[in-house]
Amino acid sequence: MAIYLDNAATTCIDEAVKAAMLPYFQEHFGNPSAIHSMGRPVRAAIEKARKTIAQHLNASPAEIFFTSGGTEANNTVLLGCVKDLEVQHIITSPIEHHCISHFVEFICQNSNVQSHILSIDRKGHINLDELADLLGKLQEKTLVCLMHSNNEIGTMLDIEAVAHLCKEHGALFHSDTVQTFGYYPFDLQKLPIDFMVCSAHKLHGPKGVGCLYIRGDHKIKPLLHGGSQERNMRAGTENVMGIVGLGKAVELAYAKREENEKHIQGLKDYLIEQLTTHFEDIQFNGDYNGRSHYKVLNVSFPPNQYNQMLLFNLDVAGICASGGSACSSGVNQASHVIQAIQTDPNRTPIRFSFSKYNTKEEIDALLAQLKEILNRD
Amino acid sequence: MAIYLDNAATTCIDEAVKAAMLPYFQEHFGNPSAIHSMGRPVRAAIEKARKTIAQHLNASPAEIFFTSGGTEANNTVLLGCVKDLEVQHIITSPIEHHCISHFVEFICQNSNVQSHILSIDRKGHINLDELADLLGKLQEKTLVCLMHSNNEIGTMLDIEAVAHLCKEHGALFHSDTVQTFGYYPFDLQKLPIDFMVCSAHKLHGPKGVGCLYIRGDHKIKPLLHGGSQERNMRAGTENVMGIVGLGKAVELAYAKREENEKHIQGLKDYLIEQLTTHFEDIQFNGDYNGRSHYKVLNVSFPPNQYNQMLLFNLDVAGICASGGSACSSGVNQASHVIQAIQTDPNRTPIRFSFSKYNTKEEIDALLAQLKEILNRD
Repeated sequence: MAIYLDNAATTCIDEAVKAAMLPYFQEHFGNPSAIHSMGRPVRAAIEKARKTIAQHLNASPAEIFFTSGGTEANNTVLLGCVKDLEVQHIITSPIEHHCISHFVEFICQNSNVQSHILSIDRKGHINLDELADLLGKLQEKTLVCLMHSNNEIGTMLDIEAVAHLCKEHGALFHSDTVQTFGYYPFDLQKLPIDFMVCSAHKLHGPKGVGCLYIRGDHKIKPLLHGGSQERNMRAGTENVMGIVGLGKAVELAYAKREENEKHIQGLKDYLIEQLTTHFEDIQFNGDYNGRSHYKVLNVSFPPNQYNQMLLFNLDVAGICASGGSACSSGVNQASHVIQAIQTDPNRTPIRFSFSKYNTKEEIDALLAQLKEILNRD
Repeated sequence: MAIYLDNAATTCIDEAVKAAMLPYFQEHFGNPSAIHSMGRPVRAAIEKARKTIAQHLNASPAEIFFTSGGTEANNTVLLGCVKDLEVQHIITSPIEHHCISHFVEFICQNSNVQSHILSIDRKGHINLDELADLLGKLQEKTLVCLMHSNNEIGTMLDIEAVAHLCKEHGALFHSDTVQTFGYYPFDLQKLPIDFMVCSAHKLHGPKGVGCLYIRGDHKIKPLLHGGSQERNMRAGTENVMGIVGLGKAVELAYAKREENEKHIQGLKDYLIEQLTTHFEDIQFNGDYNGRSHYKVLNVSFPPNQYNQMLLFNLDVAGICASGGSACSSGVNQASHVIQAIQTDPNRTPIRFSFSKYNTKEEIDALLAQLKEILNRD
């Protein structure tokens, strides 16, 4: 079995999530919109998942909408804000996931909406003063769209400061929380965020399902049109098995959140310490020992003849890590995130990302392989 | 266990489909875009499913794109035709599924595209001459959008005649084949259709996944923007387990297609014969004994004090049927389909829809219950 250190790309489905999903193959296969005995328990299962998720956010179940994943959820927010909430300006950053940045570009090319890209420092942080200045200047309705934790370098937004700043200026605030949902606590009675999203497969749930939080007073139209599912917010027969899995994954993630954080942060700290001790001229990308997601560590080794092949050699040794976002894998150039934080272009960044299933022994095995690969003659 | 006669709404997952999906919970959980050992076999599984589906359509794998289901696939075609293929007119029918009709309305309200609704006869058939006339008159690029089999009454389009008519007139042709994919053979080297769609859960596959066929020379843009998945046609981490299940479901459906058709048609014929023999003044809606899907039978019993409660009473007796489309269940009025074929408004239509799992004994049990319920004093 491989040593899997690519948990920001996707995660293994938890045994309890699998167990929760299994009855929906054959026992409870009905259409949740059907009013007969094969439909009603299926509808109830969807509503139970919605309630579970809402409770963990301190939100109302009516504010949670199921989607086919993070991309659809993020696209829905952007399109809805522009089409239905009269947004004229989108303030965003250069290190957003492509499902935000590409769609913002698409919207701006096809409408009068203007985008404003904040600068970021070399750790990947925005400047709150710059954001405040910009919000002060823009007269028309504005959406601020900033991810909670960057998927490649782990740098985290001061989401509370941004939310309050947006509220002060009457701007809408959407955060792509795909990497933090289930990993950090959210209290939406206190945090004045307007939209946030979740992708089940990032937190030991299934692929192909996610959800969208929309604060109660915002009325946006669906991205997908058709049946009246999800109270007319998302047409199409519900991915019941996926929704049940998502609900269970969220429940589990928050039940053991602090314990998991402690374990995973311990692995990250240990890897940082060992790399610093045993390798020369290591660089860590992002705010790795500051405001950073505990599950992500992005490392650059010094230029070296084995560097370009490092990921390949780790893979041969049974260790799965990545060069950045999985969505851009195979693209042979530095990612937009790595370019934006201006790291040394001669260094190849590697992202290690951890889960509750990783062990110190696995980190030791990684370190042993790194030593062997990088010290070859 | 209930007697399940609502297979046009959704179907039970086949045991072999479940078996094919199970390894994707934990054994093969990697991100298909990852280039390491946990990603590559997952990518291969997706491409295998794509190839299977393409082979059964006599199409190229490059023409198959996975989506979150039929609604997304249908929406993608409509939006793409209007935005990218310069379609100015959409010719459609009054009995399309809402994911077509509502989205056509939405598009026409938000652009200069004009819709043209063909008339239908009381069996639910369009008039080919009317379509030919209209195609002859329209000067700008036109999309013809007609479902292959109606989900409520089973009436089937002469898809070959329409496809050839569209080709003659240089119009694009999209058919919503959600109810027929896996139930009827398609040879896309012979059938000049431009787009068709599939929803896995209609053919004993999982909910939340489907696919879209786009004939090779059409370049349309994605509905969901973000990562470069599905060759830039559908952003978002792939629903791998669902895609594998869809591939297996299509394989199984075509492996035993003729056998299943014979079995299911037999059940339908038996129910028609028994209802005609044992009940007075029965009406069958749609072209039930003509060009009709073998899995659907839509019946109206004569006005009767028990009629309004018939579905409820069947449900109490453990028999699952529906009043029409599941997507509109709970809405207390005749569906747009039933209204369009001008049936007696005092009669309540009931849709029985069958699968390979139904038996003659189940039909007998249904008949016994119908007799009991409708003859109560």
